[in-house]
Amino acid sequence: MTPFTSDDYAARMARATGAAREAGLGGVLVAPGPDLVWLTGYQPTAITERLTLLVLAPDQKPTIVVPALERPDVEAAVGAPALSIVDWRDGDDPYGTVGPLLGRGGRFGVSDSTWALHLLGLQRLRADAGLSTGSDAGFAALTDCMPMLRAIKDRHELERLTAAGAAADSSFERIVSVTFAGRRELDVAADLADLLREFGHEQVDFTVVGSGPNGANPHHEAGPRTIEPGDTVVLDFGGLMNGYGSDTTRTVSVGEPSDEVRTVHSIVRRAQQAAFEAVRPGATCQDIDRVARRVIADAGYGERFIHRTGHGIGVTTHEPPYIVEGEEQPLVPGMCFSIEPGIYLPGRFGVRIEDIVTVTPNGGQRLNNTSRDLHVVA
Amino acid sequence: MTPFTSDDYAARMARATGAAREAGLGGVLVAPGPDLVWLTGYQPTAITERLTLLVLAPDQKPTIVVPALERPDVEAAVGAPALSIVDWRDGDDPYGTVGPLLGRGGRFGVSDSTWALHLLGLQRLRADAGLSTGSDAGFAALTDCMPMLRAIKDRHELERLTAAGAAADSSFERIVSVTFAGRRELDVAADLADLLREFGHEQVDFTVVGSGPNGANPHHEAGPRTIEPGDTVVLDFGGLMNGYGSDTTRTVSVGEPSDEVRTVHSIVRRAQQAAFEAVRPGATCQDIDRVARRVIADAGYGERFIHRTGHGIGVTTHEPPYIVEGEEQPLVPGMCFSIEPGIYLPGRFGVRIEDIVTVTPNGGQRLNNTSRDLHVVA
Repeated sequence: MTPFTSDDYAARMARATGAAREAGLGGVLVAPGPDLVWLTGYQPTAITERLTLLVLAPDQKPTIVVPALERPDVEAAVGAPALSIVDWRDGDDPYGTVGPLLGRGGRFGVSDSTWALHLLGLQRLRADAGLSTGSDAGFAALTDCMPMLRAIKDRHELERLTAAGAAADSSFERIVSVTFAGRRELDVAADLADLLREFGHEQVDFTVVGSGPNGANPHHEAGPRTIEPGDTVVLDFGGLMNGYGSDTTRTVSVGEPSDEVRTVHSIVRRAQQAAFEAVRPGATCQDIDRVARRVIADAGYGERFIHRTGHGIGVTTHEPPYIVEGEEQPLVPGMCFSIEPGIYLPGRFGVRIEDIVTVTPNGGQRLNNTSRDLHVVA
Repeated sequence: MTPFTSDDYAARMARATGAAREAGLGGVLVAPGPDLVWLTGYQPTAITERLTLLVLAPDQKPTIVVPALERPDVEAAVGAPALSIVDWRDGDDPYGTVGPLLGRGGRFGVSDSTWALHLLGLQRLRADAGLSTGSDAGFAALTDCMPMLRAIKDRHELERLTAAGAAADSSFERIVSVTFAGRRELDVAADLADLLREFGHEQVDFTVVGSGPNGANPHHEAGPRTIEPGDTVVLDFGGLMNGYGSDTTRTVSVGEPSDEVRTVHSIVRRAQQAAFEAVRPGATCQDIDRVARRVIADAGYGERFIHRTGHGIGVTTHEPPYIVEGEEQPLVPGMCFSIEPGIYLPGRFGVRIEDIVTVTPNGGQRLNNTSRDLHVVA
């Protein structure tokens, strides 16, 4: 995988600045997190109360404000040659340092996970300068004002997402040959994490092993419960490889499944397939959600599908576009997101099937390609 | 260590609500992070774009707003019995769910690391309701409006911080007997992490090994550099044990140090000692910083001490009180913070010495007690 270069980061920053202008914004402010990684390649060793902030605005070189003692870390980032670096020292007012970079610039987009501490500091700065009135006139979250900034992946990003998906698939193909019955969820989760690393992930973000009733809690991770013969087990796992995410789910049965489990699994599978087939440029995110939801509702389980159908993926495992009712964003080639309907029967079991899908001019293409049959494991 | 109980969490929430009233606030809003852990014992498996928010307000039971699919996780938290739980589903407006809990309540404190995405959503909510004008009239960061909420530790918290400090000390006593020369910083860092875990830490947050010129970058972590005879090495390490932090620094010399290293080390040591001796109830944070800075400035290295003297510690390893110029908060018995002056000579070496100190009625008491001599290692 060819590493991203300083030029790649410079191009992304230019694109973000242009998109901000088109959105009627004065510029973009980005604190440490996935947007900063995507724009500059820089990730501080820890996200702390000390302000680090990238300022992108037209007619101004991209400028990053950093604590003086973290300057060497920024200087070592791949994107650094495209940046001006301005540092501040403990005891200085970091917002005062940012001020001159904002000019009289109107409304700014601000990265979603910027700390409230810092946003309030910036709002105070602008209020003091008489530059904004109204509670949010001065700032808008990037997800609200430029939601699709990172949503359309280029060729090099798709290459990484494809590789991450393939590594997750390899991990799944290996995990179904381990013994489940009699082992704890935590042990199977540890196996999954080892496999993801073995197949190239540098970071494992989640390894859900939801056995029996635990599978009915979509956000259960893995616990001390011993997996029993007859259990249905939800396996949902992913992380980062070459800086890009994987996220896939398969549901397995420990020994032969009951008729009910077979029925529920086949409904979820049909919902997932129907949503996948609905993917094409111009369909909206909401359309895809509705297609999956309709299949499950028609089968009588509408109340048991308690989450959205999916989320985007890139340098994070949760980002726009969100595949959810109310999201009218049309799909565009290059977008990548999960399609992951599920049915959850409290106290009993759950089923979820999830693939990452990318939009092509001709429809959807899956980045996960293991069988979606109900796997029987030992 | 006796685990905290639901009653402990209820008492903390009551204390926070009372402190908010005293600060003239309508209440406190807390997103996932250290404040939420401290108040409720609840920590979601991941901090995501889905809103989770604890609302504390007078005359109202503490209420946590959570995504429906994370409700079972909240219900399992130790502090849950003291909470009302209100959930929202994907596609709902989570801010609308929060709205009725805020009443007409005036200005709210909001936890520092709350995402800007969420703060802006709340600001929009209040603006739509005609409840606030001005950029920050409606919200203030907890560090700004109630900075000392978690700063004064009770007996049970001190017990945990003392144990974490002792475990860090044990780790240091073992690390000085390993061979440094010829090994990479990363290898010594891995040893340090293993030791912290061996002595009881459940989480290792940082293991800085700054050898030779790398020691002159206070935020250098550990890299591939091979440690050489004659190097000065800064070791700064810590994490969480029983949910409370450790953070200590010692500087060692690989073989006999030069006269210059000895001199610089003794200046830092004197600064650290002088600051420690200045700790007493009523002295301000700024006073302690000035004492350390004065010793170093008088020795001619003022420009080379490029960070504040210290920071509070508790359920995080960086929190108020900050020991920095401009912080006029008086010290109060039960406060715990680092005293960690340093001198950094770019391209050459650095020296830092750090202990966690707690304030007693009679002065400071160190929670780190290994020798502050310049250790010579192999």
